Amino acid sequence: MSKKKVILDCDPGHDDAFAIMLSVQNLDVLGITCVGGNTPLPNVTRNALTVLEAIRHADEVPVFSGCSHPMVADLVTAPMFHGKSGLDGHHRPEPVHQAQKKHAVDFIAETVMTTDDVTILATGPLTNVAEALNREPRMVERVREICIMGGSVTFGNWTPAAEFNIFVDPEAAARVFNSGIHVKMCGLNLTRQSGFTDETVRRFRGMGTEVGEFAADLTEFFMQAGRKIDDPTVACMHDACAAAWVIDPSLITSAPMHIDVELSGRFTRGMTVCDYRHLCGPNPIYDVAREPQIGFKGAEPNAEAALELDYDRYMQLIYSTLRSYG
Amino acid sequence: MSKKKVILDCDPGHDDAFAIMLSVQNLDVLGITCVGGNTPLPNVTRNALTVLEAIRHADEVPVFSGCSHPMVADLVTAPMFHGKSGLDGHHRPEPVHQAQKKHAVDFIAETVMTTDDVTILATGPLTNVAEALNREPRMVERVREICIMGGSVTFGNWTPAAEFNIFVDPEAAARVFNSGIHVKMCGLNLTRQSGFTDETVRRFRGMGTEVGEFAADLTEFFMQAGRKIDDPTVACMHDACAAAWVIDPSLITSAPMHIDVELSGRFTRGMTVCDYRHLCGPNPIYDVAREPQIGFKGAEPNAEAALELDYDRYMQLIYSTLRSYG
Amino acid sequence: MSKKKVILDCDPGHDDAFAIMLSVQNLDVLGITCVGGNTPLPNVTRNALTVLEAIRHADEVPVFSGCSHPMVADLVTAPMFHGKSGLDGHHRPEPVHQAQKKHAVDFIAETVMTTDDVTILATGPLTNVAEALNREPRMVERVREICIMGGSVTFGNWTPAAEFNIFVDPEAAARVFNSGIHVKMCGLNLTRQSGFTDETVRRFRGMGTEVGEFAADLTEFFMQAGRKIDDPTVACMHDACAAAWVIDPSLITSAPMHIDVELSGRFTRGMTVCDYRHLCGPNPIYDVAREPQIGFKGAEPNAEAALELDYDRYMQLIYSTLRSYG
Amino acid sequence: MSKKKVILDCDPGHDDAFAIMLSVQNLDVLGITCVGGNTPLPNVTRNALTVLEAIRHADEVPVFSGCSHPMVADLVTAPMFHGKSGLDGHHRPEPVHQAQKKHAVDFIAETVMTTDDVTILATGPLTNVAEALNREPRMVERVREICIMGGSVTFGNWTPAAEFNIFVDPEAAARVFNSGIHVKMCGLNLTRQSGFTDETVRRFRGMGTEVGEFAADLTEFFMQAGRKIDDPTVACMHDACAAAWVIDPSLITSAPMHIDVELSGRFTRGMTVCDYRHLCGPNPIYDVAREPQIGFKGAEPNAEAALELDYDRYMQLIYSTLRSYG
Repeated sequence: MSKKKVILDCDPGHDDAFAIMLSVQNLDVLGITCVGGNTPLPNVTRNALTVLEAIRHADEVPVFSGCSHPMVADLVTAPMFHGKSGLDGHHRPEPVHQAQKKHAVDFIAETVMTTDDVTILATGPLTNVAEALNREPRMVERVREICIMGGSVTFGNWTPAAEFNIFVDPEAAARVFNSGIHVKMCGLNLTRQSGFTDETVRRFRGMGTEVGEFAADLTEFFMQAGRKIDDPTVACMHDACAAAWVIDPSLITSAPMHIDVELSGRFTRGMTVCDYRHLCGPNPIYDVAREPQIGFKGAEPNAEAALELDYDRYMQLIYSTLRSYG
Repeated sequence: MSKKKVILDCDPGHDDAFAIMLSVQNLDVLGITCVGGNTPLPNVTRNALTVLEAIRHADEVPVFSGCSHPMVADLVTAPMFHGKSGLDGHHRPEPVHQAQKKHAVDFIAETVMTTDDVTILATGPLTNVAEALNREPRMVERVREICIMGGSVTFGNWTPAAEFNIFVDPEAAARVFNSGIHVKMCGLNLTRQSGFTDETVRRFRGMGTEVGEFAADLTEFFMQAGRKIDDPTVACMHDACAAAWVIDPSLITSAPMHIDVELSGRFTRGMTVCDYRHLCGPNPIYDVAREPQIGFKGAEPNAEAALELDYDRYMQLIYSTLRSYG
Repeated sequence: MSKKKVILDCDPGHDDAFAIMLSVQNLDVLGITCVGGNTPLPNVTRNALTVLEAIRHADEVPVFSGCSHPMVADLVTAPMFHGKSGLDGHHRPEPVHQAQKKHAVDFIAETVMTTDDVTILATGPLTNVAEALNREPRMVERVREICIMGGSVTFGNWTPAAEFNIFVDPEAAARVFNSGIHVKMCGLNLTRQSGFTDETVRRFRGMGTEVGEFAADLTEFFMQAGRKIDDPTVACMHDACAAAWVIDPSLITSAPMHIDVELSGRFTRGMTVCDYRHLCGPNPIYDVAREPQIGFKGAEPNAEAALELDYDRYMQLIYSTLRSYG
Repeated sequence: MSKKKVILDCDPGHDDAFAIMLSVQNLDVLGITCVGGNTPLPNVTRNALTVLEAIRHADEVPVFSGCSHPMVADLVTAPMFHGKSGLDGHHRPEPVHQAQKKHAVDFIAETVMTTDDVTILATGPLTNVAEALNREPRMVERVREICIMGGSVTFGNWTPAAEFNIFVDPEAAARVFNSGIHVKMCGLNLTRQSGFTDETVRRFRGMGTEVGEFAADLTEFFMQAGRKIDDPTVACMHDACAAAWVIDPSLITSAPMHIDVELSGRFTRGMTVCDYRHLCGPNPIYDVAREPQIGFKGAEPNAEAALELDYDRYMQLIYSTLRSYG
């Protein structure tokens, strides 16, 4: 079976690095598009090249720099998790490869319009994707699907209600969820099931390869950064889950539901409001007609939310992929 | 051990009826205060009296009529679940007892100021409670705790994000959660574990008592009403769980967390925004100082949220209480 | 002609003091009800008594203490304008009179229900009035009208869009504007036309009376306080305009319009959103039916907004009233 | 003196047509960029070409088609004012000229980056301009200024608080006002002073030229459309005022102020919140530090708002320009 064609839109970031490593080996990555998020755009672009050089695919996979800032909001970054460079912890040299001249938004729009059956895999704020939709609205009929790491069916991380990627650019996320394209949402509720542990680090180092060391270094830094804030014993490489979902849909159990993004709200801006009342036992679906001010009670599903991860098989995919880089 | 002193503020409603039946037998109910909610206030007050007459305690427990409408919002009712009377399904005559002349808000404020160690058990919109706090702010130092049926740690029922009681009067709920009084929130996430089944109805009828028939009639109607909307096989008597929690705290596992109520938001008005990030594995508590526009990241717990119900022991409490009415 | 019956709800405050002085002489003041606002409630109540003693009517006009805090929001006060006591600048002794025991909210509700044709004149946050409406919804059919100092047809003072009284308790204001009672809004757009000047102070002192000195002291303090902030050469006794409007409607030109209060909004919370498109030349009234999410495009007037002050006659009323106190 | 270099971004629209006619004769129009607004994008682009052909400049001024929809919101159009074509009333044939292939957003970004001292004159929703800023953030240091027709210092038209152009794409407007570029806002408060009358139509027809007839036809339709809705006796060609302001700044009196765009709000979404408290007599500038949740109390001006139009000289500019087309 031929590999799925994807554009990987990301903001590496430690967990994006694992999404890149999974995707390049297991998918047909038409290009990597970079967006400001975990760290400012110049860092993101450099980090994407660093990861590609680490896995020795920088000559094959083109990298495109995109939007440096959210569509409307100010940029928020996460140096407490990713360090000053956005990918602290590894020992790679500065990359020698460079990003393409074309703007990431143009690359996305043009590729989708000229290539059939493209999946967009987005693991950062959705700015580039939303801007591509604004630039080329006909993309809607062309894209196969959009699979994102972002949001949550349950609770957030950056705020009680909002996950970081959506919080950073809620307007872009709203644009994507309301685009008409089928969105597969791999949210925190799923990615919190994906923890790398000290044992994971040992197995990475045990590979005896550069890529294994690189992966171990990134995991250790990310785990340590998390520890300072909340003493976890695991590091969740959130973005890698979304990549894994595209690679092998059977790794994740999901359900269709309506999802929209709260743009207002004193406490809820950036929340992915998921209507999963139909999934649960006694579940009154409220009569839509009675309270027109409410956005989407009982609305038709526009998305599919990841719910349960097959952890063992997910970790097998991680290990086998990293080993495959030799 | 002497029974806990409670004021039961409610809007019966089928599930409020069970909260009344549990409370009157197992707690020292100083009074029942009525609030517009599931059904308009005149219905609510009559239904409270009906339940008290059914269990033959209408001479002992005074009933007070309170606020007919939310503090600021328009009243929303739920006839699709509770029928036209708010307590459809039973065969009791019109009650002969009457409500007291005193306004429910005055009863709450005066009772709390003159009686030590009062618990407020609230199973309707929080209008009466919030108005009592506004009327007598010193209540804050006098109340033992407020235990509510309302909100949800996870998802809502009236909207994807909001539970009915909070949705009806979000401003009142915000007033209560921010009052400084410790709030025990028995939300939908808990009450969805409390389903009455056909077997429950059979056991009620099997008691061979008037109270058993009354309980069976109410359960059957409520189950049938739910079926029209979402075909459940169970009927969750939400409000009874909050009463059970006050009666025997060991029936419910809970956790402290910060909870506030979203008053704005296109999709989230009336949502109880629960910060339970600290309960979960890798859980970044965001630095409060960095993003001052966000309300309460990492804020100190002001509430305790019900998480898990000991269903078997809960049902034992239900059965034994109903039997005790003879 | 007999004097109009009014309940004066206020939060003195320098400008409230002038509202009291105007009202007691020219209206049938059934009672003065106090609300936390310009200064905390204990100050407000004391200041109301101080003003009544200054004009020697403290034996006739009962004072009632009401809500210390807004319905839902936290209390904001304005010590930069009114000083620590809320009425800095005068030389009166502590009042010897005391407030009544009855709560202001009860006084308002009971008086309206038992007395025909009562006007509510409210010059502070609308907490007491809204709470009275919640306590006794039948007031709506009994009140003659509510005349408030608050809001603005144009711009605000506390924020670019919001005036202080409405900003302090927007939920209460929304309750009042949506109550069904006709609201006469004397907003900043009107009261900014009412400036007292150095000449005003000279004329007050020139009266050679205690009341004249009292008025002059208050005006000088208020003018000086304003100067520190914005160097005005005038002091607008906002609240006095609302009193004057009730006393002599011919002093103010007004127009009917729909007014509601914005409760959400990043920049507009507490704004009185006035629909005066119909007053102006080319004025498209948008088709209400097309955009149902918009609250009140083209809605029927529920209020009357003050637009233009007859300054000379207003000042005559001020002077003649103060002189009449001898 | 050489003519000012401008990019005219518009959504013709009758009043945009007059903005084009004024600009092409009196400014160095580098290009006309089209955006969905008054009417869908295909109509807008055709109408721009129609106007250019009417004034016989379609060979000189390139037209670029841009964004068909707002950045995040759904498109709202105004057929009740502009008819089905967006420019109903004229008798021109379909244009023979065509728009350029380049996307309007690219034209704006590239032109600004390669040409010194460009003014952006925007008379439609600000989607194209905001997208250009997102595409090329360095534009901020290159643009001379942005002059818009949009918003209002006082009241709105589409809603009580919001003007149409800003209401259609509030997120784009917020992006522009917060970009750091100096914004000259020619709002409804100004353009309502610019009414064309029956006499204007007579003078247009009296020119005895094709352009005069074209202008008269457009004015008559626009006046008639307005009449159906609100019986005005004048037709305000809003967009022409903004063009006139760029052509001859002395035609309009303005003042610096801070302006931001409300994106939330039940009644105020799309409002340009103008802080003009400093312009008015007694004007308390609130202490910014005390209430950090309020966006911009007393913030530094980021914009200049048009306040008063020199109507006679404005009309002279209109007449002389139309006559100059021969």
